[in-house]
Amino acid sequence: MPDEAKHKCGVFAVWGPTDSAQLIYMGLHAQQHRGQESAGIAVSNGRSIQHHVGMGLVGEVFNAQILQGLEGRGGIGHNRYSTTGSSRVSNAQPLVREYGGGMQVAVGHNGNLINADRLRADYESRGHIFTTTTDTEVIIHLLSKHHLTNEDPISAALEHLYGAYSLVFLFHDRIEAARDPWGWRPLVIGRLADGGYCVASETVALDTIGAKLVREVEPGEIITVNDEGLSSRRFADAQQPAHCIFEHVYLAHSSSRLFGDTVQIARERMGERLAIEAPVEADCVIPMPDSGRSAAMGYARQSGLPFREGIVPNRYVGRTFIQPTQAQRDMAVKLKLNVVEEVVGGKRLIVVDDSIVRGTTTRGKMQQLRNAGASEIHLRISCPPIRHACYFGIDFPDPAQLIANERTVDQIAAYLGVDSLAYLSTEGMLSCVSRPPESYCTACFTGEYRLRPERQVTKLDLERHQLKMFT
Amino acid sequence: MPDEAKHKCGVFAVWGPTDSAQLIYMGLHAQQHRGQESAGIAVSNGRSIQHHVGMGLVGEVFNAQILQGLEGRGGIGHNRYSTTGSSRVSNAQPLVREYGGGMQVAVGHNGNLINADRLRADYESRGHIFTTTTDTEVIIHLLSKHHLTNEDPISAALEHLYGAYSLVFLFHDRIEAARDPWGWRPLVIGRLADGGYCVASETVALDTIGAKLVREVEPGEIITVNDEGLSSRRFADAQQPAHCIFEHVYLAHSSSRLFGDTVQIARERMGERLAIEAPVEADCVIPMPDSGRSAAMGYARQSGLPFREGIVPNRYVGRTFIQPTQAQRDMAVKLKLNVVEEVVGGKRLIVVDDSIVRGTTTRGKMQQLRNAGASEIHLRISCPPIRHACYFGIDFPDPAQLIANERTVDQIAAYLGVDSLAYLSTEGMLSCVSRPPESYCTACFTGEYRLRPERQVTKLDLERHQLKMFT
Amino acid sequence: MPDEAKHKCGVFAVWGPTDSAQLIYMGLHAQQHRGQESAGIAVSNGRSIQHHVGMGLVGEVFNAQILQGLEGRGGIGHNRYSTTGSSRVSNAQPLVREYGGGMQVAVGHNGNLINADRLRADYESRGHIFTTTTDTEVIIHLLSKHHLTNEDPISAALEHLYGAYSLVFLFHDRIEAARDPWGWRPLVIGRLADGGYCVASETVALDTIGAKLVREVEPGEIITVNDEGLSSRRFADAQQPAHCIFEHVYLAHSSSRLFGDTVQIARERMGERLAIEAPVEADCVIPMPDSGRSAAMGYARQSGLPFREGIVPNRYVGRTFIQPTQAQRDMAVKLKLNVVEEVVGGKRLIVVDDSIVRGTTTRGKMQQLRNAGASEIHLRISCPPIRHACYFGIDFPDPAQLIANERTVDQIAAYLGVDSLAYLSTEGMLSCVSRPPESYCTACFTGEYRLRPERQVTKLDLERHQLKMFT
Amino acid sequence: MPDEAKHKCGVFAVWGPTDSAQLIYMGLHAQQHRGQESAGIAVSNGRSIQHHVGMGLVGEVFNAQILQGLEGRGGIGHNRYSTTGSSRVSNAQPLVREYGGGMQVAVGHNGNLINADRLRADYESRGHIFTTTTDTEVIIHLLSKHHLTNEDPISAALEHLYGAYSLVFLFHDRIEAARDPWGWRPLVIGRLADGGYCVASETVALDTIGAKLVREVEPGEIITVNDEGLSSRRFADAQQPAHCIFEHVYLAHSSSRLFGDTVQIARERMGERLAIEAPVEADCVIPMPDSGRSAAMGYARQSGLPFREGIVPNRYVGRTFIQPTQAQRDMAVKLKLNVVEEVVGGKRLIVVDDSIVRGTTTRGKMQQLRNAGASEIHLRISCPPIRHACYFGIDFPDPAQLIANERTVDQIAAYLGVDSLAYLSTEGMLSCVSRPPESYCTACFTGEYRLRPERQVTKLDLERHQLKMFT
Repeated sequence: MPDEAKHKCGVFAVWGPTDSAQLIYMGLHAQQHRGQESAGIAVSNGRSIQHHVGMGLVGEVFNAQILQGLEGRGGIGHNRYSTTGSSRVSNAQPLVREYGGGMQVAVGHNGNLINADRLRADYESRGHIFTTTTDTEVIIHLLSKHHLTNEDPISAALEHLYGAYSLVFLFHDRIEAARDPWGWRPLVIGRLADGGYCVASETVALDTIGAKLVREVEPGEIITVNDEGLSSRRFADAQQPAHCIFEHVYLAHSSSRLFGDTVQIARERMGERLAIEAPVEADCVIPMPDSGRSAAMGYARQSGLPFREGIVPNRYVGRTFIQPTQAQRDMAVKLKLNVVEEVVGGKRLIVVDDSIVRGTTTRGKMQQLRNAGASEIHLRISCPPIRHACYFGIDFPDPAQLIANERTVDQIAAYLGVDSLAYLSTEGMLSCVSRPPESYCTACFTGEYRLRPERQVTKLDLERHQLKMFT
Repeated sequence: MPDEAKHKCGVFAVWGPTDSAQLIYMGLHAQQHRGQESAGIAVSNGRSIQHHVGMGLVGEVFNAQILQGLEGRGGIGHNRYSTTGSSRVSNAQPLVREYGGGMQVAVGHNGNLINADRLRADYESRGHIFTTTTDTEVIIHLLSKHHLTNEDPISAALEHLYGAYSLVFLFHDRIEAARDPWGWRPLVIGRLADGGYCVASETVALDTIGAKLVREVEPGEIITVNDEGLSSRRFADAQQPAHCIFEHVYLAHSSSRLFGDTVQIARERMGERLAIEAPVEADCVIPMPDSGRSAAMGYARQSGLPFREGIVPNRYVGRTFIQPTQAQRDMAVKLKLNVVEEVVGGKRLIVVDDSIVRGTTTRGKMQQLRNAGASEIHLRISCPPIRHACYFGIDFPDPAQLIANERTVDQIAAYLGVDSLAYLSTEGMLSCVSRPPESYCTACFTGEYRLRPERQVTKLDLERHQLKMFT
Repeated sequence: MPDEAKHKCGVFAVWGPTDSAQLIYMGLHAQQHRGQESAGIAVSNGRSIQHHVGMGLVGEVFNAQILQGLEGRGGIGHNRYSTTGSSRVSNAQPLVREYGGGMQVAVGHNGNLINADRLRADYESRGHIFTTTTDTEVIIHLLSKHHLTNEDPISAALEHLYGAYSLVFLFHDRIEAARDPWGWRPLVIGRLADGGYCVASETVALDTIGAKLVREVEPGEIITVNDEGLSSRRFADAQQPAHCIFEHVYLAHSSSRLFGDTVQIARERMGERLAIEAPVEADCVIPMPDSGRSAAMGYARQSGLPFREGIVPNRYVGRTFIQPTQAQRDMAVKLKLNVVEEVVGGKRLIVVDDSIVRGTTTRGKMQQLRNAGASEIHLRISCPPIRHACYFGIDFPDPAQLIANERTVDQIAAYLGVDSLAYLSTEGMLSCVSRPPESYCTACFTGEYRLRPERQVTKLDLERHQLKMFT
Repeated sequence: MPDEAKHKCGVFAVWGPTDSAQLIYMGLHAQQHRGQESAGIAVSNGRSIQHHVGMGLVGEVFNAQILQGLEGRGGIGHNRYSTTGSSRVSNAQPLVREYGGGMQVAVGHNGNLINADRLRADYESRGHIFTTTTDTEVIIHLLSKHHLTNEDPISAALEHLYGAYSLVFLFHDRIEAARDPWGWRPLVIGRLADGGYCVASETVALDTIGAKLVREVEPGEIITVNDEGLSSRRFADAQQPAHCIFEHVYLAHSSSRLFGDTVQIARERMGERLAIEAPVEADCVIPMPDSGRSAAMGYARQSGLPFREGIVPNRYVGRTFIQPTQAQRDMAVKLKLNVVEEVVGGKRLIVVDDSIVRGTTTRGKMQQLRNAGASEIHLRISCPPIRHACYFGIDFPDPAQLIANERTVDQIAAYLGVDSLAYLSTEGMLSCVSRPPESYCTACFTGEYRLRPERQVTKLDLERHQLKMFT
């Protein structure tokens, strides 16, 4: 499902080691799959904050000279894929601001704030100036305000936020990290071998820098790391959890442990369960690389059918590829995925993918398999049909562009040109992860939103969740 | 085996369509795995030749503006990894030169000329000036000379060359393509849907642009494509073939058909054969991604053991990655490949890779698997130990740096830290491809060179192969 | 006096023509001498504002593509040399901001606000966030505040400003321009040949785009240009004028008309007056190119001595010149100015320059003349000694670094190594311009400041000038 | 006359000091007026040659890192304006080549070879390959040939050259410099303060690096500088000199001493002589800046009329200026030169310029003066009308585009829109320099060529000058 559902950023923070910028750089690389639009690092040398952000991949934004210029005892980093806020460098994070006459702060955010527009309008009505279009900037205005009157301005600020957020903060003398009371997005704490702690969106970043997983940051918790070590406090009661199940289906890295499960194992189980729910007679199972591989392997194992690689990705076709004409765009699809004719020719194929969003790319791939001589194509998807928008941090296209929107499974199969199509059921999907089904947000599949979407938020909603009225 | 044995360039040529530069651009993308050091395109508008070359990947060297500036009825392209000639832009191909008072030619070369140094010395002794350090430039001096006296200067020039070469030429009014009499490197002809022909190193380039495979260019053959169509002639008798078996083991794209076999099928067979030659009791088979996946699948199928993905590559860690210190270099290895602990923890693993060159990277990966809790590691390699230099177009390191050089398999196993190690036998390897065993060059494994290496070439050698004495 | 006293920005605005961005681009080129640190253009297409700013010269910041992307019916531009605010791109102007829920404004500023720090501190204490270090940003916070409650928010905002400012504003439907009540910096109105009006710091910009000078913007006046044409209003009573006399001495372009005089004529008169005040027997008069040429010509004319060019500048030695060692820095001085030996050798020279700031460069030049064989050097400066800081828009170095600070003229002559040195008197200087002497600010020469400097501003000062207390 | 007649390159060479690259860098800056198209430096560390060349000004091509990478005991540098060979980086000099199996040489050339095409054709007919379109490359082929058979290959090579050349060579252990037997272009030797020698096109480069002028390189002389010091030999008898008089009129730097005269003094004398030959009643004399200033000063002195600056150049309008439309091109002319209305308004002006090539720019400037209110314009040019091509190193436009071609002076005056126009006579011009009139080439004014132009060279011509027949 590459290129269709956009991830929603990754955050990383560390305090303690002398080579903080290098560790953050590694952490951002490890979490690059969570956002390829921009990258940034802010560090503190104990007195003041320096930062560098830019558009592009981590490896494009940073070079050795820039990295060496970022000396710090701690810092934060951010991979961004735009959800709110358009693609421009002034929106790249961490956002670094000064307030209250010399107080510096850097903020990185993964998630989406439902009441950001209201908060912003409220501030603007009192003459405040905003310089980005991100929902993150409002958090700094809240901090700036409560800084003057409150002993714990972060807690005071977070009490106004409504939505999904895993946040990292850098001050001159410490990092802080906070997670919304519903725990939508992952956020984990790691202990470094040489002392110090880090916080990351995913455990893959911890593994990469050799940090040991301590635990998740709890929903409703703020943790602080400074030269004294790690401390914790709550700013809100934890709510009924709403972990994003789509992290397991597609977003997270296979090797990460998330909400209590290893992602790859969860994906293999989804494939197995899919083989039970939607079996079909065929010659072999082939994955849609790379995202469908784990589920395909589970399907093959459960069904007893041979597992074959019939589609080979071209690793070098990147974002720079130039496609001036329609004919060339068709070539580009072929270029990204080459079919092995001898594997698929004359065969009845079960093709397993993790999900379908718009369906246009999938349709092209099915056509390529037909052209290479596949006699039957049975497409199996390891999650339910995606039919609803996400307000909690995934950038799905407009529901009208979702192929499953107001279409039956048969209609989708006809559009994609496959002999049969089956999706995993919601119950089946939830049976593959360890926590109780009601601990996960499945709104993109079911439309059952834990919090009301943006334009419908009422005073009552905020009161129900004990949120402070504005600002 | 990524990053250790360097490929030896890819060539592409086309004549006929109006959007030649775009087709060459696609072809170079499809063959990017054959060379990432530089890329170049030369086109002719029927009267004169224009070209653009640069260091880096195809997507880095070209942008829309450059591509639109290259209007042509035909042209050639080249992906380069340096064999002879150091890394610098003046060595990037196609080489474009003028001779004989206005005759323009562009040349792209995949292979290695054993007698290039002698030819060059001979020319220099007569006052000729060379401006690159590539062995390709000598071909143009030969062309320039024979252009004055010979009706078929290409044939006349090729009669002086001794070694491996798949060549494409562009003149103002045609393309030509030639392959050495031994057929070391692949070279295939394709027919375009809308008329015209193309020539490419691998069939994956034909598939990508929608061209149909016509046949291989024969060893000792020159083909010409101009506005009249395709014609062919021989410049030498075909010799006993010496197809590079390492193309099947590692170099070529999985989906290509090469010397009569589909690469992926050959690799799966090598895995199956390896399971027969070197079985071992274990819990599962895991591939070294991405190059060992096909052989691992074959091994799993033959052995009946479960196939699991225990190592997950990070697709975003590119050439720009910065590694200032040793500690960080160790992190970098972890960053490129993340281990799924739950898959490998407490398990007896059979790890399948396609080949080992220096062994340092492999050793690091084995250590990562141990750290993640693997109880046993049995490493299986789907080709024999690499012990000898290649003089025919692969840039292996100096034999002294090859891990299998003067080490027994047990010594290698001890160095890598694995419980057992086995390589596929030469006979086993050759049994997985269709042509007779004596049709392949296996010199890097066996030391049996079809032509004598560089410094030992005698007059007799050249006469035996009916090659013209200098120049 | 190049490279020593930094100009203080130039502003330009236009409304009416379809090619606004191109006209602004020309205007910025014409005013490039007022600021070489950064350049920027903001335009409105009638609905919304687009802008582009960057570090460097106008010709470096803009290219054809960028310029074509800036379609507008009107817009503003800015050349910047930093006074307040360090050198960084976020400080480059025009500053573009949004406030009050979608209200866009762009601002360009020439001058210096004495009470900017106090206004900023006041805002920060109420939670506002600043993102630049310029004094201009506070103007937008004032606008944002008064926008909510005031019919004429610009007038309301300006009532809080204390200091020197020539301002241009761009809104989606108009430009506005304002000048402080003292008229420190120039600001003129021009009428375009094809309809529409422009506003510029200097008349040279009007001449360049073929606009006719209408008149100066009056001290204390705001003018508005929209699709209806030009209108005017006052936001403050005009004060006793304080026109910067140093604009005539050095800052402005020779061909500009300023505060009622043509700059070049004023400079020639200063040279003539200097010849009367400080005559000396000599063989010829030579100018320090390029800034001393007009005064030297006046001196020669008045004294009847021959005018010769003995020092020739190298036009190509730019900001990119690399000077790693002290020896090479000495060469660099020679490189920028070459002496014509045959002109100066054995001669008694009168060298005329417009001013001396630090004196180090002048000293090097005098040494070069001696080395070339000058028998006597009589240095004549066409303004009085600069001994005091400027708080109204010129970036002189710290007074401690001014050569005339606590040194007598004889001491300066000794340091510079000249046979005699004379400065023009303050009265003499003021006699060369048309308005009454008390209409000019001469504080850098005399220390008589019209407004108290920054840290000494009292509530009384503000009340005296009818300025509103904070914000 | 800026932007119309293109200079023909500058050369610089040095051997001895440890910071050779820095000295060459300074020398190239000092000679930047001789060529702004490309710049390059080659240095030798005593064993091998390194170089860096690029398109653009010296300050654009080099930065501190590049310069520090060029360590050398000696080296050569080159400023280029294309005469033969189109504008592309492969033509930038110094040309660096290897020949004869490891012999490295770098060459820089100022001048033009009349028989380069013939030599090249001759070489190409024997299979040699050329990679640039410059006439300089043929010199290296000659060197490469004579290297094998001749003790002094440079002398042997130069005996084949026919035309104008001031050449510098760098070998691993020395520099060499040579000047054609007619002495067309300048070439001088300097002694460095700290030991070692340098060679430069103009003395301004010597002055800049603090070197003392030793003498000119003699026509027909080769000088060598190595660790032993300076030595000299002749490769040809000196011919009747043909020094380019246009170097004095326009090309050279005002402060240089050339063919026995200081350039600025020669120019002032030309102005004086012009006042005698073509007096007119007027109010003042104004120069066309910057090139007409010296002559204008001479004219004013001789005529007794006041000298005024009525036209002020904008120093910041560079090559990057964007002029999309005709209207804007007209603005661009105004932008480069601003008129001071108060100086020229209502006045009878004598405008002095050094030369007119195409006349289009001059016409625009005259129009500007009229628009500013000049009552009469009398244009005086300090050289004769340019009517013929130059084959010896100046890139005038095609004769058909020269305004004086087939037009009388009255017709030119009408085209330019001036009240009167006068040129200096050839005799008058030659009376302002010291050597006998027959020592100068005046072919661009008179059509009397010392050597026949390119296509008409016969065997006889070469024999007459004792030149070797081809190669």
